[in-house]
Amino acid sequence: MNIVDIILDKRYGRALSYEQIMYFVDGVTDRSIPDYQISALLMAIVLNGMDEREMTSLTLEMADSGEHADLSYVGDITVDKHSTGGVGDKITPLVMPLCRSFGAKIVKLSGRGLGFTGGTVDKFSSIRGFNVDVPKTDFPRLVNECGMVISGQTPDLAPADKILYALRDVTGTVDSIPLIASSIMSKKIAGGADAIVLDVTCGSGAFMQTEERARELANAMIKIGRLAQKKTSAVITDMDQPLGRTCGNVIEMEEVYETLSGNGASDVVEVATAIGARMVKLAGKAGDYSDDDLINECRLRLGNGVARDEYLKLVRSQGGIINDNGPEYVDRPHVIGEVKAPRDGFVGAIRADEIGHASVLLGAGRIRKDDAIDLGAGIRFLAKRGDEVHKGDTLCVLYIGNNSSLTPDSEKYEEISERIANAYTITADKPEVKRSVIDVLGDQ
Amino acid sequence: MNIVDIILDKRYGRALSYEQIMYFVDGVTDRSIPDYQISALLMAIVLNGMDEREMTSLTLEMADSGEHADLSYVGDITVDKHSTGGVGDKITPLVMPLCRSFGAKIVKLSGRGLGFTGGTVDKFSSIRGFNVDVPKTDFPRLVNECGMVISGQTPDLAPADKILYALRDVTGTVDSIPLIASSIMSKKIAGGADAIVLDVTCGSGAFMQTEERARELANAMIKIGRLAQKKTSAVITDMDQPLGRTCGNVIEMEEVYETLSGNGASDVVEVATAIGARMVKLAGKAGDYSDDDLINECRLRLGNGVARDEYLKLVRSQGGIINDNGPEYVDRPHVIGEVKAPRDGFVGAIRADEIGHASVLLGAGRIRKDDAIDLGAGIRFLAKRGDEVHKGDTLCVLYIGNNSSLTPDSEKYEEISERIANAYTITADKPEVKRSVIDVLGDQ
Repeated sequence: MNIVDIILDKRYGRALSYEQIMYFVDGVTDRSIPDYQISALLMAIVLNGMDEREMTSLTLEMADSGEHADLSYVGDITVDKHSTGGVGDKITPLVMPLCRSFGAKIVKLSGRGLGFTGGTVDKFSSIRGFNVDVPKTDFPRLVNECGMVISGQTPDLAPADKILYALRDVTGTVDSIPLIASSIMSKKIAGGADAIVLDVTCGSGAFMQTEERARELANAMIKIGRLAQKKTSAVITDMDQPLGRTCGNVIEMEEVYETLSGNGASDVVEVATAIGARMVKLAGKAGDYSDDDLINECRLRLGNGVARDEYLKLVRSQGGIINDNGPEYVDRPHVIGEVKAPRDGFVGAIRADEIGHASVLLGAGRIRKDDAIDLGAGIRFLAKRGDEVHKGDTLCVLYIGNNSSLTPDSEKYEEISERIANAYTITADKPEVKRSVIDVLGDQ
Repeated sequence: MNIVDIILDKRYGRALSYEQIMYFVDGVTDRSIPDYQISALLMAIVLNGMDEREMTSLTLEMADSGEHADLSYVGDITVDKHSTGGVGDKITPLVMPLCRSFGAKIVKLSGRGLGFTGGTVDKFSSIRGFNVDVPKTDFPRLVNECGMVISGQTPDLAPADKILYALRDVTGTVDSIPLIASSIMSKKIAGGADAIVLDVTCGSGAFMQTEERARELANAMIKIGRLAQKKTSAVITDMDQPLGRTCGNVIEMEEVYETLSGNGASDVVEVATAIGARMVKLAGKAGDYSDDDLINECRLRLGNGVARDEYLKLVRSQGGIINDNGPEYVDRPHVIGEVKAPRDGFVGAIRADEIGHASVLLGAGRIRKDDAIDLGAGIRFLAKRGDEVHKGDTLCVLYIGNNSSLTPDSEKYEEISERIANAYTITADKPEVKRSVIDVLGDQ
């Protein structure tokens, strides 16, 4: 077997055998296949595709390229959750305590933010004292004590995926359903959970710009999950505008607490409820609830304080400081400016990718892995899709943290506010109402 | 401008601008673009194609990546000739003196053989004393004295093409009409000739396996030639069996001399006549001959001694030794064995690629650039397509040179003769007659 023949097979549109995929992933992992051959094969995969069997082989081989996490200490069915990326995505801090309230135990390994999508670990690190670097050896104790743990201390899961991802990033081969699906699923499988709930976002702020492509990606991952014997569900959610009322770190965690206190934005509540219900179900904690009843129960617990109690336990368990008003934060966002409606009309769409980029420029996210971020920076949306606005109304408020050097009269600030203004579409007619949860697919 | 955006444009099937192609070729030439990005773009080009304008930009940029040969010393229209590769291809030593007999002056830079196709320079080096490493500074004198020069001393033409070709070879991106066409044409354009005649082979021993693909490649190169303001013709020729009666080095040059003495194989005469006539025409030496008359005149001069006289001048001019029977050779091929017909029938096809590989194993060609070759080794075909054979008839005779260590009872010899036997298709019915020259396209 040699790599040139494997490239040629894919170049001519033939399906690769399990042995060929194993040879490829082994050669990627031990660096014996040079990058120029890897990237040629990646481009051939992007353009000629992969069938389900190939995607599953690629996923399993990548999952096996490093260690598999052992979650046996949990002593129960474990459910993992993954989002394909969004702006204003604060679902994880909501569904963890929600699922816990049904008795599920949740071990969540999460990344830091990179590019225009924020990272859950960064958001948790906005809580004063909250330790997001929990060593693996402490997981069993924390799960035992509190039933939940979240950490950015990701072990070396699926190293082949890491190598491939770095190469895809610089060779125009990121946007490919087989490559995205196998990348996500390899890490989830190596992560050791028994079941997986996927939040597949679609729209301007997502990998998948259209609902059709999002369904395709969701179905690909569900099929891989099944062939790998992991129960897998996917919730297709809208990302044609940022999720919820805020985007940033401290302000998003403030929104999380508001949501858990019964004052959630409708889109956030809808998505958190759908995903939470799927996770509860796959964790085997749905009891006698029918699917509809489970959704209703989730909605109830999300707002009535039950999930909030579990959330405060999680915060306390990982060292977070809580005062009378809830968690304390490491910074206090203060207003740097506002973006106004340029004319009368209705908010049509809010390009989430543009908002995400503007939020990175404000300081709330990173472009490079080692960039420092301003946890106090962020954006609060006063008008969202469907809202009527008049010329001069505030569309959103921009925040920075205490140590930010950004000033309202700087060129950079002008660029940011212009970018945000351009992200808004103001239409003459009221736009159609769109649901935030578009569909739920996969294992029930 | 950056290379990832260029890759993405091609990945999504968009045409690249002239500026993008210039950026790419510059980055290839100065090695500032890493191989993994080059190979990703190459694969995207292979799968998404290039239009005529893109191919022409790529060709011209590659031609400009190194020096351009200056043929102004010739003082006349210069015509170059290129074959896309064949087995038993001895057309160059025939058409050079043929064209010269019409007054054309020919400067031919030619490569050594690599892989299963032989090299014209190796064939000329079979003549005792013939210098195939003529320094460029001697070209004007030789052209002035004899009107012809052939050399393997290729200057650093189109270095970008060299880099791309080396990478294509190991990334499964060789078979691509835009990449093949621009690679060939960039070297021809940098070579400095005013007009180009292309021998585009098709069949089992060629890059292009089908007539359709050969026409596509020919038309691509003709269009590039025209956009680059070089008169360009293409002759589509059959390579579903080796060309002529021999394949090797000394024995092919012996066949050249036989052909020039009026005893040529019909396929060799047909191809040499067609290509020679095109070259004479593009060189502006066709006088009042009609196209048909020119072909007839070429056929006449090829066999009546006129071209042979010019050939002997060329041999002498570059130091080759001539005796009463024609040129002297550096080795004397002697028979090592024969391959017999396994049953009664007709020769259908002779896989030229398999014959080429067997001939490399016999010692007549190289696998690696630095391999030594046995100039005496080769194969003589006694039966070709359409010939009736009886079981036990000799299909071909295998030769080795004086210093060969190959023995008839060795395993290697057994492998070679088996490979050759398998290259023959023996059919019950007489196969259709196929012409060796399938079509002539391009500038008249």
